[in-house]
Amino acid sequence: MGENGKRRIRLGMVGGGQDSFIGYVHRIAARLDGEFELVAGALSSRPEVARESARLLGISPERAYTDFEEMARVESGLENGIEAVAIVTPNHVHFGPAKAFLEAGIHVICDKPLTSRLEEALALAEVVPKNNAKFLLTHNYTGYPLVRQAREMVAGGLLGNIRVIQVEYPQDWLTEEVHNKQADWRTDPEKSGTGGCVGDIGTHAYNLLRFVTGLETEALCADLATFVPGRMLDDNVHIMLRFKGGAKGMLWASQVAPGNENALKLRVYGDKGGLEWRQENPNQMWFSPFGKPRQLITRGGVPAGGGEGAPVRIPAGHPEGYLEAFATLYSEFAAVIRAEEDGALLPTLGDGVEGMRFIVAAVTSSNNDSQWTALE
Amino acid sequence: MGENGKRRIRLGMVGGGQDSFIGYVHRIAARLDGEFELVAGALSSRPEVARESARLLGISPERAYTDFEEMARVESGLENGIEAVAIVTPNHVHFGPAKAFLEAGIHVICDKPLTSRLEEALALAEVVPKNNAKFLLTHNYTGYPLVRQAREMVAGGLLGNIRVIQVEYPQDWLTEEVHNKQADWRTDPEKSGTGGCVGDIGTHAYNLLRFVTGLETEALCADLATFVPGRMLDDNVHIMLRFKGGAKGMLWASQVAPGNENALKLRVYGDKGGLEWRQENPNQMWFSPFGKPRQLITRGGVPAGGGEGAPVRIPAGHPEGYLEAFATLYSEFAAVIRAEEDGALLPTLGDGVEGMRFIVAAVTSSNNDSQWTALE
Amino acid sequence: MGENGKRRIRLGMVGGGQDSFIGYVHRIAARLDGEFELVAGALSSRPEVARESARLLGISPERAYTDFEEMARVESGLENGIEAVAIVTPNHVHFGPAKAFLEAGIHVICDKPLTSRLEEALALAEVVPKNNAKFLLTHNYTGYPLVRQAREMVAGGLLGNIRVIQVEYPQDWLTEEVHNKQADWRTDPEKSGTGGCVGDIGTHAYNLLRFVTGLETEALCADLATFVPGRMLDDNVHIMLRFKGGAKGMLWASQVAPGNENALKLRVYGDKGGLEWRQENPNQMWFSPFGKPRQLITRGGVPAGGGEGAPVRIPAGHPEGYLEAFATLYSEFAAVIRAEEDGALLPTLGDGVEGMRFIVAAVTSSNNDSQWTALE
Amino acid sequence: MGENGKRRIRLGMVGGGQDSFIGYVHRIAARLDGEFELVAGALSSRPEVARESARLLGISPERAYTDFEEMARVESGLENGIEAVAIVTPNHVHFGPAKAFLEAGIHVICDKPLTSRLEEALALAEVVPKNNAKFLLTHNYTGYPLVRQAREMVAGGLLGNIRVIQVEYPQDWLTEEVHNKQADWRTDPEKSGTGGCVGDIGTHAYNLLRFVTGLETEALCADLATFVPGRMLDDNVHIMLRFKGGAKGMLWASQVAPGNENALKLRVYGDKGGLEWRQENPNQMWFSPFGKPRQLITRGGVPAGGGEGAPVRIPAGHPEGYLEAFATLYSEFAAVIRAEEDGALLPTLGDGVEGMRFIVAAVTSSNNDSQWTALE
Repeated sequence: MGENGKRRIRLGMVGGGQDSFIGYVHRIAARLDGEFELVAGALSSRPEVARESARLLGISPERAYTDFEEMARVESGLENGIEAVAIVTPNHVHFGPAKAFLEAGIHVICDKPLTSRLEEALALAEVVPKNNAKFLLTHNYTGYPLVRQAREMVAGGLLGNIRVIQVEYPQDWLTEEVHNKQADWRTDPEKSGTGGCVGDIGTHAYNLLRFVTGLETEALCADLATFVPGRMLDDNVHIMLRFKGGAKGMLWASQVAPGNENALKLRVYGDKGGLEWRQENPNQMWFSPFGKPRQLITRGGVPAGGGEGAPVRIPAGHPEGYLEAFATLYSEFAAVIRAEEDGALLPTLGDGVEGMRFIVAAVTSSNNDSQWTALE
Repeated sequence: MGENGKRRIRLGMVGGGQDSFIGYVHRIAARLDGEFELVAGALSSRPEVARESARLLGISPERAYTDFEEMARVESGLENGIEAVAIVTPNHVHFGPAKAFLEAGIHVICDKPLTSRLEEALALAEVVPKNNAKFLLTHNYTGYPLVRQAREMVAGGLLGNIRVIQVEYPQDWLTEEVHNKQADWRTDPEKSGTGGCVGDIGTHAYNLLRFVTGLETEALCADLATFVPGRMLDDNVHIMLRFKGGAKGMLWASQVAPGNENALKLRVYGDKGGLEWRQENPNQMWFSPFGKPRQLITRGGVPAGGGEGAPVRIPAGHPEGYLEAFATLYSEFAAVIRAEEDGALLPTLGDGVEGMRFIVAAVTSSNNDSQWTALE
Repeated sequence: MGENGKRRIRLGMVGGGQDSFIGYVHRIAARLDGEFELVAGALSSRPEVARESARLLGISPERAYTDFEEMARVESGLENGIEAVAIVTPNHVHFGPAKAFLEAGIHVICDKPLTSRLEEALALAEVVPKNNAKFLLTHNYTGYPLVRQAREMVAGGLLGNIRVIQVEYPQDWLTEEVHNKQADWRTDPEKSGTGGCVGDIGTHAYNLLRFVTGLETEALCADLATFVPGRMLDDNVHIMLRFKGGAKGMLWASQVAPGNENALKLRVYGDKGGLEWRQENPNQMWFSPFGKPRQLITRGGVPAGGGEGAPVRIPAGHPEGYLEAFATLYSEFAAVIRAEEDGALLPTLGDGVEGMRFIVAAVTSSNNDSQWTALE
Repeated sequence: MGENGKRRIRLGMVGGGQDSFIGYVHRIAARLDGEFELVAGALSSRPEVARESARLLGISPERAYTDFEEMARVESGLENGIEAVAIVTPNHVHFGPAKAFLEAGIHVICDKPLTSRLEEALALAEVVPKNNAKFLLTHNYTGYPLVRQAREMVAGGLLGNIRVIQVEYPQDWLTEEVHNKQADWRTDPEKSGTGGCVGDIGTHAYNLLRFVTGLETEALCADLATFVPGRMLDDNVHIMLRFKGGAKGMLWASQVAPGNENALKLRVYGDKGGLEWRQENPNQMWFSPFGKPRQLITRGGVPAGGGEGAPVRIPAGHPEGYLEAFATLYSEFAAVIRAEEDGALLPTLGDGVEGMRFIVAAVTSSNNDSQWTALE
């Protein structure tokens, strides 16, 4: 039931069983444009949950696995085995499945951050995928049309030389000690890795600024904090950034800022103009050409001079949201899988390695009295 | 690939061929939660367009019809024929298909307004559906979670007795004379009916205020205008309203208000508090209990005291939009079709008749020097 | 201590004793630019209050009157008597003082609405002022820089031919029955006149739309309501408007809309563009040229092409407010008094008569089942 | 013409001649509540400008000085000499006049930053004022009613223990090289001191966060930048902060951020709630009690539970702005001069010294590869 006359791509999923937030999101993203069909899964390591979750999703019992390695092996041998797999497990269970499926010649769609440790990320980057299997990292915010347009506007010179970048990603859901499926693994170094807030949402903020500006980081200077007593990972992140070419930036991420739900915001300033975009109202963006009135750019609306706009599903004023942005990554990856597009805008395994370097540099700098630290 | 272990409902579509806006929207809405599968269509009355549109949508050639009556007849006779049909044609082609499919025992999902003339609407209301076939009118704005929550808050007495309702729906896309598929039929009395702007978006605004407040209209006083020379239908709508019980309202709809994309907004004021919701940023709503600070209610966020919130797919701060609201109607209708839910919140054929009465009353009042006119 | 080397104008005040809101506002407005000096007053009809109020304001006891007629007579005979008087009494005590001071050759600054009854307004318009004494009606919202700029932009054709005007002025302070000095006279027909909400704030909204657009009203169609039991005047106003030349409008004013403090808002739409201005954040204005992105015009900021901006005291980003706008009327009137300027933008006695005709037409139409009623 | 029956305080001014921005602001602030009367000035060091400026301000020629020391000497000897003086010169001419007038027993109102060098500030703090003369530093943003209310709310525990503070003050007026009276001295180390942007607006941001939270700074980590070629002082300021007790903060100030006029914004987060206030719309403030809907607090509106609100001149919805906040400092200082109030909320010479320590620490840290640096 896609819109382009093409057969749906057969998709599997690792993780994403009952009560998973991000697995559900990936499934909607896969369905929305009709490009994928979920036919197999290792949805949980607990057999009963895996089985029941598969049943609810219409996956036939024989393709409901409890072990991702078995799944990779079996599916790669089936005539109509899965062509791609979505990995939606906690961070420490990204590396294993990603390696297994790439080596089985199955395309991988992996949630971020890439892994729980930089070493794994580097190892994953060394994997030689069978049959040129492709990799997509779901830094989903890059799928928003206005984020794409912002990137075009920067690349097209509408802002001039970039000088200052302010990015922030405050939330409040961990303001107090909290225990549930979502919170528990994110605050557990075994599962999340060395970064808490910095890995969970700091990497999104960092990826977003790099996606829009294209700047390379020279060094960062970080001050991570853990405010909630007993928590083992950072819950507030203060970082100053220096970019190659001279631009400077600030990044704030927090899980303890009451009144903030998911308030990712990016501001970019150059010598000719500025941009501001907020994830919570993603259909609008401020463009401020220096010396002229601020303009409100809208998704699907009149483009700013030189910024040609980005593809949208429905007209301006009909808000698209988080799920549509996520679905865009899936659908563009479908075109890559079909070898119709090169997916130049899609987040790569390289972006994932960069994100891990960012986490490591932030933790290292913070542990070294905020010394300027390169990403390496 | 739904989420509930249920087989997908087999769906057909009338209208919605290439270049259709609303057909595409209906298809995404049908796909998003995985509850429907499109398997047949009379997508265009032009055979070539019907055929090619079907091909792109993965509909097999033998189920690509050019005549909706044939489609109703054939599909109702198939073992695996469609269970429901989406009617997404211009207004003057709502009545025929709706009647044909209901009488064929196939559930109908029909775009608004119900028909192009009140007589058709009344006739449709008299149709006896075969096999108790159900009817859904896609007043899609009622699918937004915060609109549902607003209704609950009013019903729960958080606003007290309702006194004043201000609703508006300005757009700007018809500010100048424009010719394209979308504009042409909407400005053609043969296809659109007696109402232009009042039928296309005025009915949405009117439906929204009734959905949220539950008030019955006593009479309205209208002043319709056509500003663009040569246009044959109204493009700006000014209406004053009186409701049973004493509340009063204003409704403004316009297609000629530059700077407005799809700016549907509802404000409701009672003797204990006020509410304000805007479609273009549908994840936020103002609640103003009298004598206390205004509160910003968010979709999926902390509920206001007494308003219990409405079902959402993803957490607060992750914006859902127009397509999700539309999909909610489809998915809830799926539960109705499966006889699992009564669909108490879904827009009905009766709402469609009420909308037609609204159009007629508005045009009549406007033609009678804005005399107060009852809806009958 | 003005800024222009000119001697301060000697000012008197009628009304404005202790606990007066608007008298205090007038005094700050008179002081702010250093153009006036308050030297006399009939601040209250209660001698003790008049005396004590005068003492607090530094008015010498012999110029603290209890009778405005005596004040007009005495002051006009003094060598250094007042040159201008501010009338800040309830509506029913506007006519008497205004007539007395104009006939005594003293310039009059009068709060709005002009009088409590249209007959008084017409009679006042017939008064022949001694010594060409001038008259200022304090429709203070016309003193906001961006309101001035909006007027220029309309006059300069940036919006094209005006089609639609939406103006609203909701408040919530009378949502419940309330008794205090401010509320009591405003809800008393003896003191306020035939209009309640329509006179108190409806006239502001009406004056604002006329100031910005320059349009003449053809007729109006009104539905006034009194929601609070026992209240003797309207507290909610719904009006549709038709203007000469074909434009149409809506005006909503309310004192019973919870969550609204003083939310005067004007929107104007023409065939080339739209404007939106809100009094509660008066330093910003939307300008929407059709087919281009919306622009945020700021007070003192970069002007929109063709709109040259309006005089401001302090740079963009340093908000000016209600008092500065009010002071602008005073200071420009000072220049009129000194015969340095013609005060072309200042609200006149004619504007006051128009406001009274507006009130009468609104009440008449509402009493006649909302019949279209001309202003006469 | 004050409102309290008190004689106006006789005021002098140093600096503030024609074309001065801040001198004009101080004069309006002095006039607005009628508490001061400007009677003397050394308005410029250029005799002709001093004379003409004085004439325009109604200062008699014999009290129009060109030398502030002469002015201090002469005025302190007059029977009706000035009681207070406003110092509105560039930073490097703060110390001299402040010392001279304090030692002459004349109260001093001084613009910020306190001086151009820390040594001067420390020396000024050692001056023994004659006759217990008082000192006011015009960190004017502390005069906004909602800033006062924010301070009360923090002090009252509504936010719980403060964890994170984000303050920013972006402007865009120095995005390109610019030469005029305002820009020239601010970018000249001789006149401005060692800090450019950090002194001009960074100190405001820093003072604001301390005023609201009452926190003491432990150390800061700064990265200052100069983006415009040839500029001799910083025009962009990135600072991380650590406070005693464990709270952390970020401060961003910029003069090169296109689209920002005067966008001072403060956000404070504790374990019980958050606050957000923006100077450009100073009549509104967000209060976010954790686990409850965000509330919009308004100046003069309904107070948040426990925050009692702050004095305002006019009711909620009637915006007060920059000049009113500035005037509040003047009027409260008048009460201090009259020994009626202790002025506990007014910025002091000590605050000025703290501001200078802040500038020095920021420059030092930035020069030392962003090493954490204490304020001393």
